[in-house]
Amino acid sequence: MSYGDVMTTRAIRSAERRAEILRAALEVIAERGYRGASLAAVAERVGLTQQGLLHYFPTKEALLVAVLAERDKWDAMPDSQWRLDLLASLTEYNAMRPGIVQTFSALLGESVTEEHPAREFFTQRYEAVRATMAQVLRAEYGERLPSGLTPERAAPLLVAVMDGLQYQWLLAPEDVDMPGAFRDFLTLLGEAPGVSED
Amino acid sequence: MSYGDVMTTRAIRSAERRAEILRAALEVIAERGYRGASLAAVAERVGLTQQGLLHYFPTKEALLVAVLAERDKWDAMPDSQWRLDLLASLTEYNAMRPGIVQTFSALLGESVTEEHPAREFFTQRYEAVRATMAQVLRAEYGERLPSGLTPERAAPLLVAVMDGLQYQWLLAPEDVDMPGAFRDFLTLLGEAPGVSED
Repeated sequence: MSYGDVMTTRAIRSAERRAEILRAALEVIAERGYRGASLAAVAERVGLTQQGLLHYFPTKEALLVAVLAERDKWDAMPDSQWRLDLLASLTEYNAMRPGIVQTFSALLGESVTEEHPAREFFTQRYEAVRATMAQVLRAEYGERLPSGLTPERAAPLLVAVMDGLQYQWLLAPEDVDMPGAFRDFLTLLGEAPGVSED
Repeated sequence: MSYGDVMTTRAIRSAERRAEILRAALEVIAERGYRGASLAAVAERVGLTQQGLLHYFPTKEALLVAVLAERDKWDAMPDSQWRLDLLASLTEYNAMRPGIVQTFSALLGESVTEEHPAREFFTQRYEAVRATMAQVLRAEYGERLPSGLTPERAAPLLVAVMDGLQYQWLLAPEDVDMPGAFRDFLTLLGEAPGVSED
């Protein structure tokens, strides 16, 4: 093998290892939650020393941000294919995976503090998610929602409701029907004062 | 002075000290944010040793929860006097005090993790806030909102929007108009399909 081939092989092996670590981290999160998802627990699951794991992810925050970014990729679809009813399905799906939702919500909370390593991730993510949601709303309603709001003005509300409901649901899963409440919000969005569209 | 008088005087002095610490903590939060609000910084401001402060609040989390509970008392009014437009004013006011909003949002995030000391506070707070919001909505709209939702079903959405918008605003204050977005949501809540109320 040439030097270039060796480098390529190494890069592929490293990328595979990285993916394996992320899958293991997601499992540990699902089983033990945010606090239980220590670097040590993840390292053990993939047969690495903690030192070996640090080579891939220098901190717990870096690992968890990578897990959330990976989840976004799995949940993603081309912007043109998103629809509001798929968001409702996503909320239902999230209600079945409290570990990752808890990790998202806990890291989001930390990220608003000064110089937190996840701050950049969430800031960029929100910008992208608001833009995607505006597209989804435009595809559904055109330039104005029934309420008169533009897609750009309704998008932050859509995102806020999804995030805010997650906190209420995580703290009181018996009392808060997260998917039901989200569907209620979609009903609100679609209500047209004096306009009936069939 | 009798033994009883001494105890009463001590209790009063202790309560005054506690209130003084909470005011100092709020100042430090406003100036330095969540991360800068260390027990050491608060102790220094009230002229206590850190050890002395620990007598009143054993951990940073306990102190911050007490600050948030105190803010709730200041923001509170009798349930019968809350109105939706006052919530809009509260959101505007919050946009002028990022330090305490950041502290609320960061602690809320942490609270969803296992056995966090703030979990009980936020769980109970949400239960109470949802009940208050349902009352506010009932006072405004009666048993059904224009959309057909009951006050109890709309209340979690109202709370979710307020909390969710805070995260977006804290991460991108230039891009997200938190009070404006909240007013948009109130418009959505008030929209009546086919019904016009003047």
